[in-house]
Amino acid sequence: MEIARTFAETRAGYEGRVGLLPTLGYFHEGHLALMDLLREKCDTLVVSLFVNPTQFDQSDDFAAYPRNEERDAALAEEHGTDILFAPAEEEVYPGPSITTVSVAGVTDEMEGRHRPGHFVGVATVVAKLFAGLNPDLAMFGRKDAQQVTVLRAMVRDLRFPIEIVQAPVVREPDGLALSSRNVRLDRMDREASLAISRGLFQAAEQVDAGERRGERLEATAMRSMKSLDVDYVKLASQATMKPIETLDEPAVLAVAANLGEVRLIDNVAFDIEGSIVTADRGILLESHSTLSAMP
Amino acid sequence: MEIARTFAETRAGYEGRVGLLPTLGYFHEGHLALMDLLREKCDTLVVSLFVNPTQFDQSDDFAAYPRNEERDAALAEEHGTDILFAPAEEEVYPGPSITTVSVAGVTDEMEGRHRPGHFVGVATVVAKLFAGLNPDLAMFGRKDAQQVTVLRAMVRDLRFPIEIVQAPVVREPDGLALSSRNVRLDRMDREASLAISRGLFQAAEQVDAGERRGERLEATAMRSMKSLDVDYVKLASQATMKPIETLDEPAVLAVAANLGEVRLIDNVAFDIEGSIVTADRGILLESHSTLSAMP
Repeated sequence: MEIARTFAETRAGYEGRVGLLPTLGYFHEGHLALMDLLREKCDTLVVSLFVNPTQFDQSDDFAAYPRNEERDAALAEEHGTDILFAPAEEEVYPGPSITTVSVAGVTDEMEGRHRPGHFVGVATVVAKLFAGLNPDLAMFGRKDAQQVTVLRAMVRDLRFPIEIVQAPVVREPDGLALSSRNVRLDRMDREASLAISRGLFQAAEQVDAGERRGERLEATAMRSMKSLDVDYVKLASQATMKPIETLDEPAVLAVAANLGEVRLIDNVAFDIEGSIVTADRGILLESHSTLSAMP
Repeated sequence: MEIARTFAETRAGYEGRVGLLPTLGYFHEGHLALMDLLREKCDTLVVSLFVNPTQFDQSDDFAAYPRNEERDAALAEEHGTDILFAPAEEEVYPGPSITTVSVAGVTDEMEGRHRPGHFVGVATVVAKLFAGLNPDLAMFGRKDAQQVTVLRAMVRDLRFPIEIVQAPVVREPDGLALSSRNVRLDRMDREASLAISRGLFQAAEQVDAGERRGERLEATAMRSMKSLDVDYVKLASQATMKPIETLDEPAVLAVAANLGEVRLIDNVAFDIEGSIVTADRGILLESHSTLSAMP
C-alpha cells in the first residue's frame, strides 16, 4: 500500500477502475466493512483520510475528532487498500479558499438545519476529492443518509462521471451505530445511547407490521429516546430529505441526539420496491468493535 | 469532426492531451484565433458550444444572444476541432439544478457587482464542463479578464488538474474588441463604441510613458468615453480583481459600457516582469471580422 500526500501522486498510482472511500480517518469496523465492499468493485482502492475543518460547525468538535494515521494505515492495508491518500491541509485548501459548492433544498432540514455550513463544507471537500482524484466510483455509508442525498445531487448536477454507492450502517452487537465519536461517550452515556437504535428498531417493526404514518413512527422512536437531548426525529424522503407524512416513497427515519458533549446521528432506511417496503437496519457486528475497547 | 451531444460521447473520443475551448457559440475570429492557438497545444481539440442560461442576468439578453450551430460547426471543423460538444440544456442541467459553485472575493467588483449572479452561473457551468469533460487544459479569452481570475481560483480551490491558458483579446482593425454582441450594435452605436478601445489605448500609452497612478489611467479612458453610458472604468489587480491605486502588480484597466441595449466590456492587461510593465492590447485583425459583415 502506498501513502500518497498529493492528488497528483494518488492519480499516478491508478490502474483500471478506481474506487474511492472518503473518510475522516480513525477507522472502525464501519470503515473496514466499506473497504471490503468497495474492494470487490474496483481495481484500485483509494481511501482518503482527511479531517476536513470546514465541515465541522464547532471548532471544539474538530479539535476533539480522534486521529491516528499510523493505526489507520495498518488497518487500511489489511483491508486491501492500494493507496491511502492522506494530504496535509494545504494540499486540499491551498491559499485562501474562496470557492464553495452549495446544494440547495436537500440541505434545508435535519443536519442542514442543525449544523449551519456543514453541507457546504462536505459538498466542497468532496468536490475537491472528486475533481482532484477523478475516481470511477465512490462509497459513502448510509449512516449519513442526508449526506448521500446531497452528494448524489452534487454529482448529478456537476456532471461528475462518478457512481455513488451507499453502504449499510454498521452497528455494535447492542445496536449502537459505529462512529468515531462513540469513543468520547462515558459509560453512562454509552448505555443511554442505546435508546437511539432501540427506538429506530421499534419503529421499523411497526413498519414491518404495516404502519405508514410518519407521526406514529416518529412518536415510537421518540418514546424510546425521551430521556435524551434530541435534535430531531424525522421521517424524510430519501430523494428530497424533506419530512413526509406517509411512508409512500423511499425514506429514512432519522435521528440526531446529544449525549453530553457528543452528538450522535442514526437512521433506519425504508426502501420501496413495488408495494414492498424493506427496512434497512444495517449490519449488527457479532462482537464488539475496536471502538468499544478504546479508552 | 464529431458533433457530440453528451459528456460521455465527448469523453469517448479522446486521444492524448485534451484541450477544451468553452464557448457560447456564434463564432467570430476571436474564437477562431483561440481554436488555432489551442490546436497547437493538444492532441484532441474539444470546443463546447452552449448558451448557458444561468450566466445571463437578464433573460432578454439570453434570448437575444445569437445562435447558429450549422455555421459554427463548419467554422470549428475548418479550424481543426476534433469534437464539437453541443449539448441540449437537459444534458447540462438535468432535473432541477440545485448545486451551485461560488467564488468569493474576486467576484465582488466590476462584472460581479454589475451582473448579480453572473459569476455563480459561469463558475457552475464551467465546473460542469470540467467535471464532465475532464480536459488537460482549457483556454479562455482575456477579454473576460475577471472571468479568467474567477476560473483560475475555482480550478485551484476545487483541485481540478486542469491548466487554464489565457488568450489575447482579438480586435477589429479599428480597435473594437470582438464580441458576438457586436452584431446587435446599430451603425451609430458601432461608431460610438470605438471610444472604448481608444480610451484604453490612450491609457496604455500613458503607461508606456511611465504613468502608474490608477486615477490618471481611469480618467484618461473615461475622457474618451464621456458620451457613453459607462458602468465602470477600473484599474484592478489581476490576482484579486479589486481596484488598485498604483500599477505595481499585474493589473487590468477594465471597462463596461452600454450602447443602446448592448453592453460591451473590454480591457487592456498590464503584465509585469521584474520592473518592466507590458501592456497587452490584444491582436488587431488586418481586415474586418465576419461579425462586421453581418446584418
